[in-house]
Amino acid sequence: MNPPCELTAGEALRLMADDRLDSEALAVSCLERIDRLEPAVGAWAHLSPEHLLAQARQADQRRREGQAAGLVLNGIPVGVKDIFDTCDLPTENGTSVDHGRQPATDARVVELLRAAGALIAGKTVTAELAVYAPGKTTNPHDHSRTPGGSSSGSAAAVACSMVPLAIGTQTNGSVIRPASYCGVVGYKPTGGLLARAGILCQAPSLDQVGVFSRRVFDSALLVSALTDRSRLHGDTQPWSPPDLARLHNGSAAPPRLALARTAVWPEASKTTREAILTGITTLGVDIEEIVLPDIAGRAVGCHRTIMLAEMAYHYWHFYDHHHLQISPQLLAMIEEGQAIGLAIYLEARELAAEITDAVEQALAGFDGVLTPATPTPAPRGLASTGSPIFCTLWSLCGVPALSLPLLTGEDDLPLGLQIVAPRGMDSRLLQAAQWLEEAGPTDQS
Amino acid sequence: MNPPCELTAGEALRLMADDRLDSEALAVSCLERIDRLEPAVGAWAHLSPEHLLAQARQADQRRREGQAAGLVLNGIPVGVKDIFDTCDLPTENGTSVDHGRQPATDARVVELLRAAGALIAGKTVTAELAVYAPGKTTNPHDHSRTPGGSSSGSAAAVACSMVPLAIGTQTNGSVIRPASYCGVVGYKPTGGLLARAGILCQAPSLDQVGVFSRRVFDSALLVSALTDRSRLHGDTQPWSPPDLARLHNGSAAPPRLALARTAVWPEASKTTREAILTGITTLGVDIEEIVLPDIAGRAVGCHRTIMLAEMAYHYWHFYDHHHLQISPQLLAMIEEGQAIGLAIYLEARELAAEITDAVEQALAGFDGVLTPATPTPAPRGLASTGSPIFCTLWSLCGVPALSLPLLTGEDDLPLGLQIVAPRGMDSRLLQAAQWLEEAGPTDQS
Repeated sequence: MNPPCELTAGEALRLMADDRLDSEALAVSCLERIDRLEPAVGAWAHLSPEHLLAQARQADQRRREGQAAGLVLNGIPVGVKDIFDTCDLPTENGTSVDHGRQPATDARVVELLRAAGALIAGKTVTAELAVYAPGKTTNPHDHSRTPGGSSSGSAAAVACSMVPLAIGTQTNGSVIRPASYCGVVGYKPTGGLLARAGILCQAPSLDQVGVFSRRVFDSALLVSALTDRSRLHGDTQPWSPPDLARLHNGSAAPPRLALARTAVWPEASKTTREAILTGITTLGVDIEEIVLPDIAGRAVGCHRTIMLAEMAYHYWHFYDHHHLQISPQLLAMIEEGQAIGLAIYLEARELAAEITDAVEQALAGFDGVLTPATPTPAPRGLASTGSPIFCTLWSLCGVPALSLPLLTGEDDLPLGLQIVAPRGMDSRLLQAAQWLEEAGPTDQS
Repeated sequence: MNPPCELTAGEALRLMADDRLDSEALAVSCLERIDRLEPAVGAWAHLSPEHLLAQARQADQRRREGQAAGLVLNGIPVGVKDIFDTCDLPTENGTSVDHGRQPATDARVVELLRAAGALIAGKTVTAELAVYAPGKTTNPHDHSRTPGGSSSGSAAAVACSMVPLAIGTQTNGSVIRPASYCGVVGYKPTGGLLARAGILCQAPSLDQVGVFSRRVFDSALLVSALTDRSRLHGDTQPWSPPDLARLHNGSAAPPRLALARTAVWPEASKTTREAILTGITTLGVDIEEIVLPDIAGRAVGCHRTIMLAEMAYHYWHFYDHHHLQISPQLLAMIEEGQAIGLAIYLEARELAAEITDAVEQALAGFDGVLTPATPTPAPRGLASTGSPIFCTLWSLCGVPALSLPLLTGEDDLPLGLQIVAPRGMDSRLLQAAQWLEEAGPTDQS
């Protein structure tokens, strides 16, 4: 029998409900896996085994006392990217500037995790300030390769079954890219569904919370739990959270799928392009190819203007007071952002709304549109976290995006298949992703 | 019997459904009213009686042929602020720069009006570029006074029964203020409910479509018809449109109401303050007073930064190419906006999200929160359109706001009672407003 740490969250919850597993045993199994693999993988920024076990015992007690009803993640360990404030573990944002920083309160989504009965397993490694400069994490499939970033530790920890679930953020490609490289499900729901209070603010027009798991259903379950149903926040709108009942029931009819190569298709390697084009022929359903409107080709420049301008404002104190502790690459980005004028910024914001409008019209009528997640599988080396180029358009538009670990790229490495949909269509997207998870595409290996 | 032009839209629709009124008779009655009052009121920028009558006859034909089912505004004339593009009437934006400008297409909400069977009665006078410099319109209650602005003609036309319905926009106080001064219902739904494609763009973070009518139900009906249920736009989110069934049923229980004086309460005249405080004592329900968080007091400065910065960008070509045709007041505002740097702007955007979050928490739990609509009734003179100071906070937050013509201010002039609610709570707000419309407050005259 496989160790409990390899269970999906859904499986573990069912076993706990049947009294065939307790949270402490799950946590012990996760800690054993961490013990064994952490030296090579380096997924964790902060981890307290005693604290995790204490939370697990509390969850078990709640369950035994009948207090766990309605706690949809009771007893499940979750890795939390080290840019989400946690009141019981440091939050260092991937920078020595914040060394030892201990927040007094939880980020709103961390509060919601605890309210759902989840265990905060620990804080996962993030690239420096959630941008590019890598942390210590390696790719579990090949330690000489990047896990991707910036949610590096969250993707890697889930990939090697240190935890069944983890949370991260995406401003450009920080969920979808590491999910593709590490071979896990990465899901960034519609922007504005999840509250960002208590999370490092990089570029608020673009920053979006996302999740990692090994199965589509688990990601849906986690995002559902992270949705604040009690109220809206200054940065949220009433998007619909995943409809778990629809996912439980499975899908009768195959989803309506399309392929979108997008303007950056030539950036994908020949192997990636072939993996997608061949993969979709094995699905046994018609897949129409859609051509995005020309304006979508301007997304990368538009996104860069907005991201750098907002980052320069929000990270200015790092630049100004902690110059020597910030990577040269990030300093250069902040300088580039600092030079952007208001008119250029507002022009980009206007363009972003136009791109969103045009892209959503193109995506309409499909349950999911397939597109690469990354140009290649995880590149060699740990100095870079790879390219977010296949995520930029979708992050800019705030549309839901999910990377499925269904393809194989160069060197037999995992390669994500990305599926996107118009804003608000998360449930249909997840249902389509779940269908793909079951139906294929057939791996050619 | 009162002339058909004095019917509410709801009444006219019922009579038409019963074959006791046709749209042509309604249009003729509206045109007679316009003929009689327009010389003194000046509500219209563009009006073609023949075109209106032709639309009315088409609506009658649709009805007679059974083609009007589902067309919720079939045969109802609607005044359209002259900043909404119309393919069959000029759109001059209240500036000589756009003299004779004839758009090729309709604004999205105008398309939706036509799709609902409504008649475009004509284009109503707007202040210069939807800001402050007044057009020709006078207040129907006293022609020596301002009708308010910038949706001046829409409010005035509805007030004197030239049309039962009109549409406008609010970036600061351009719906609520003229509604208060003219003694009509003005309703600005949650920002992001209605699409702004094809409308003059002043400050996209703040620009919001709103409506005018003589009864709460009519405003709800109109906003419902203006909601694009077919798709989202780059500038819309899935807010719920008014639930007309709830309004049809009326409210069993009195609404949960509160009073919020807000930080600008001292700007209201003694008579206005007394009218509200006395008025609410006559309602026969408990009205709790809520105190908004301190941060809400920063709304006016925050709003000004965002509005002027965005306006300077969007109106730059007017400044640059048409200097002599723009009012000195607007030129000065554009210059002030032009001097705002990106960091100051982003700081204001961040503050706006914080204010929204804090204010919505304060409003939560009430169906509607009462507050002044304007400091006084319509001021004397036509050189200014009055003060938007009681609208600024709510426009900044994008919360729904409605002005009810229930109070009487200085010189026995109409004075609006404003009711606000958290974003998305439009249906509860409308139900509360409808209850107030029926229950009082008792006019003291």
